[in-house]
Amino acid sequence: MEKVMLLIHCKDATGIIAAVTNFIYQQKGNIVYIDQHVDSENGTFFMRLESVFEHTSFAYSTFKKEFSEAIAGTYEMEWQLFPSDYKPKMAVFVSKYDHCLYDILSRYNAGEWEVEIPLIISNHPDLATAAKNFGIPYYHIPVTKETKGEAEALQIELLQKFEIDFIVLARYMQIVSEKIIDLYPNRIINIHHSFLPAFVGAKPYHSAYKRGVKIIGATSHYVTEELDAGPIIEQDVARVTHTHDIKDLVMKGKDLEKIVLSRAIKLHIERKTIVYNNKTIIFS
Amino acid sequence: MEKVMLLIHCKDATGIIAAVTNFIYQQKGNIVYIDQHVDSENGTFFMRLESVFEHTSFAYSTFKKEFSEAIAGTYEMEWQLFPSDYKPKMAVFVSKYDHCLYDILSRYNAGEWEVEIPLIISNHPDLATAAKNFGIPYYHIPVTKETKGEAEALQIELLQKFEIDFIVLARYMQIVSEKIIDLYPNRIINIHHSFLPAFVGAKPYHSAYKRGVKIIGATSHYVTEELDAGPIIEQDVARVTHTHDIKDLVMKGKDLEKIVLSRAIKLHIERKTIVYNNKTIIFS
Amino acid sequence: MEKVMLLIHCKDATGIIAAVTNFIYQQKGNIVYIDQHVDSENGTFFMRLESVFEHTSFAYSTFKKEFSEAIAGTYEMEWQLFPSDYKPKMAVFVSKYDHCLYDILSRYNAGEWEVEIPLIISNHPDLATAAKNFGIPYYHIPVTKETKGEAEALQIELLQKFEIDFIVLARYMQIVSEKIIDLYPNRIINIHHSFLPAFVGAKPYHSAYKRGVKIIGATSHYVTEELDAGPIIEQDVARVTHTHDIKDLVMKGKDLEKIVLSRAIKLHIERKTIVYNNKTIIFS
Amino acid sequence: MEKVMLLIHCKDATGIIAAVTNFIYQQKGNIVYIDQHVDSENGTFFMRLESVFEHTSFAYSTFKKEFSEAIAGTYEMEWQLFPSDYKPKMAVFVSKYDHCLYDILSRYNAGEWEVEIPLIISNHPDLATAAKNFGIPYYHIPVTKETKGEAEALQIELLQKFEIDFIVLARYMQIVSEKIIDLYPNRIINIHHSFLPAFVGAKPYHSAYKRGVKIIGATSHYVTEELDAGPIIEQDVARVTHTHDIKDLVMKGKDLEKIVLSRAIKLHIERKTIVYNNKTIIFS
Repeated sequence: MEKVMLLIHCKDATGIIAAVTNFIYQQKGNIVYIDQHVDSENGTFFMRLESVFEHTSFAYSTFKKEFSEAIAGTYEMEWQLFPSDYKPKMAVFVSKYDHCLYDILSRYNAGEWEVEIPLIISNHPDLATAAKNFGIPYYHIPVTKETKGEAEALQIELLQKFEIDFIVLARYMQIVSEKIIDLYPNRIINIHHSFLPAFVGAKPYHSAYKRGVKIIGATSHYVTEELDAGPIIEQDVARVTHTHDIKDLVMKGKDLEKIVLSRAIKLHIERKTIVYNNKTIIFS
Repeated sequence: MEKVMLLIHCKDATGIIAAVTNFIYQQKGNIVYIDQHVDSENGTFFMRLESVFEHTSFAYSTFKKEFSEAIAGTYEMEWQLFPSDYKPKMAVFVSKYDHCLYDILSRYNAGEWEVEIPLIISNHPDLATAAKNFGIPYYHIPVTKETKGEAEALQIELLQKFEIDFIVLARYMQIVSEKIIDLYPNRIINIHHSFLPAFVGAKPYHSAYKRGVKIIGATSHYVTEELDAGPIIEQDVARVTHTHDIKDLVMKGKDLEKIVLSRAIKLHIERKTIVYNNKTIIFS
Repeated sequence: MEKVMLLIHCKDATGIIAAVTNFIYQQKGNIVYIDQHVDSENGTFFMRLESVFEHTSFAYSTFKKEFSEAIAGTYEMEWQLFPSDYKPKMAVFVSKYDHCLYDILSRYNAGEWEVEIPLIISNHPDLATAAKNFGIPYYHIPVTKETKGEAEALQIELLQKFEIDFIVLARYMQIVSEKIIDLYPNRIINIHHSFLPAFVGAKPYHSAYKRGVKIIGATSHYVTEELDAGPIIEQDVARVTHTHDIKDLVMKGKDLEKIVLSRAIKLHIERKTIVYNNKTIIFS
Repeated sequence: MEKVMLLIHCKDATGIIAAVTNFIYQQKGNIVYIDQHVDSENGTFFMRLESVFEHTSFAYSTFKKEFSEAIAGTYEMEWQLFPSDYKPKMAVFVSKYDHCLYDILSRYNAGEWEVEIPLIISNHPDLATAAKNFGIPYYHIPVTKETKGEAEALQIELLQKFEIDFIVLARYMQIVSEKIIDLYPNRIINIHHSFLPAFVGAKPYHSAYKRGVKIIGATSHYVTEELDAGPIIEQDVARVTHTHDIKDLVMKGKDLEKIVLSRAIKLHIERKTIVYNNKTIIFS
């Protein structure tokens, strides 16, 4: 039995759903999941589809070629096809904060996600032990103003060597440069410690405290060149009161950060996100 | 332009989605919404589909007949078809509490729902003014142990006279009898003031207070013969602390009750619910 | 039996709590509620205290005078004292949206709040019927660019005639001017349809849609001269997805707006708020 | 500077707050936190108070003796006094599930809590590595029907040897017997994977799935002899839909379990809980 997953977006038109589902049927597939969305404001169609093929003659590459010719071409689709037995490879970037890293590693260790983590990259040596405890190679690449370019080249070398599919910034306290963003468009996941777009930039807990908000939040988003402005994948919030000082906000926020980041990672691994117009379609 | 909505469930099989979507395509419809679910435990397939027909030759009854023959018969479907311009007719049953009623009437008044409310039925006269203020006929049908059968006959007469499609029990403090439930299977919506199945029966706030829970809830469900055990449509909760006494729980609960009931009503009006195995599939 | 409520803030110092509680004890009062907060960043002390006096010789004015001399003077307190049988008088300002108004009026009608609503003021005639249904005088005072000053004078005249204690802007679509704000410092409650400080200003739902947030919110705050920047009393949020268009956000937001505004009104009526440094201390 | 924390409950009476606060003042203490609650139903008074003593002559034992005589005796209080520099000792019991353990250990490692964890006890060897990675002794004490008494004696020996103050059952899949409960009254914290009192007993996720609830929960409570019926410390919930099968509920539930358990542990460590009438007062 083979299973494939299809992510599509294109200009909306009559008959797309029928065309796609009929194609799957002709290929002797059984659709086990279909979800679709039409953004009526700009007439764009989105679809996520999972299909199972029980016959032994199924060939992934043939399927891909025929879909491309018969369907994708006709409707001028942007599309992605994944064999569902492929485990994507994820790199984790960290600095000194360990709460997100431990959350990620314990989920990884428990087999919650269909993913591989070939390496952790950090600009500090502090979390090497954590990485070691979970048996994951840890690369300490210091970053200073002067060595930024060099460090980046080293990072890219590692990302390519390990054939990394996407990157998770688990409270990585450096700005990732254009070069890496271009190599991983909509494939770098960051966690920001506020309910964006409130409190963009540094020290959001200080800003939240100063403004006296009754709710704090965390936001996971794909990294784009404009800081903290990329497509939002997931957000969550927690109540706070006047009794919480900045230290309390930071503590409460850490719980939000790790849960929101892990949910975003899960959505990405399961190919449930499509990015369009700097926003996400989340099939869930 | 005509629009139809289709709700289906049947035994899962290969090709159902293709068959249905292809049928819509052949009828020159454009699918604007499709969602599906497979309960893999018992191999049941569920689908909700909205389709638009722009051609003038579309005939609802022809479509219905052809779908029945070509598709529904083949797959032994249980199915419902609705012309989307049909506004269902909803009866509201109340007693003395007015918070759910006001919430319903102000939404109705604001045009939030595609529904008609031809009448309100109550076993008390108290809320007649509220009904009058919103211009809705109010029928006071007292219910005592002795007159229960008689009252019920009167209720059924009114429900039939006004061609009521479904009933909302907006804190109606009487148990609805088997006869009415049989006439309106999965079409009587109740609001229960606890997060069922905790605290079934009467006085749930008292039980919640006694147990010292930190969260209270409300549950909207379809009424079945077993009390408080029908398929759950919607639930929500609120935090409470040791500082809240029973009166406070009641007050907080009222806010939950009205929001949860109104959400359930909205889902029902928009035909987003399918009941199966005493549970609901909620397409949203 | 008499009951008084005391709200205090002053420079923090050793012995304040003992001094206040001892004073109450000497006055033969029984403290039924005490809560305190110290803002350690700027060394400010806050307290809310409720006390019951069972002896017949208790005199409110004497108590007030003695507290002022014995305690408040010593610690240079800013303080407010309320006889707890006093029902504050609240004016409601509306425009055309009725959801907050209905929520307020149905709570008022149900006796949820210890408050009086002597009048509703609107720049439109639309909601006169709603007011009439609940038996509350409705003053239609149109506001145009030219008549703004005149309209305001008329509003102030009414507020003073009815001895209004505080004002609720229940989606009142006009900016309240400095003059009224000065007359009612920290006593004008507004509801803003976003989780401030995100999306200040007009059309927050449009901005939220455009940014693709996964959570929308509403914020109730005291009105200050800087728009949407006053002390936040209460906030709440709701989840949204890519399937919600702007109309859906508006609909979901209406539910948030009314619940958040009503919670803020309740806190204000129960004298549970102190404003300091443009933030609120909420005793709950 | 010394700091003490006082937890009190007793029959409610006039002047208690003044008596206590005045006592602290006479001892030259500065109250930095006071919170109180009166359960008016049964006339019980509860108080939590933190006080700082800056003078060098302060003696904890003298303070304790004098409070006992001057105040606690007079009002027949049940009370607890803690020097705030005392770090309580916490034992963690686990079986095979590691999600709660990792959450606890990473918080411990990050210094989030003022606590010591001298040992982990388990009826399985599986989590020994996790314990070792965080440098905490791990005692594998197998439990079978036949060896239960023996195992328990061993557990008690360890608890006493390490002077354990309280126990955390981090998904420990054995019923703790009366003997240990008697040694640690209201000092054994359990996590149950449902919003109690719904779905008591084993397999709550299966029951939740079968009932078709739209919300699942987790509950942390003190262990009493009646299973799943002890005083609730903290609860939280998460939304689920018809698309979630039992495996999904388990996964979502794990996130709830760890956060709810960790919040309960924090409250207990910070001495913010009082148990009374099988319910908790939570000062926060």
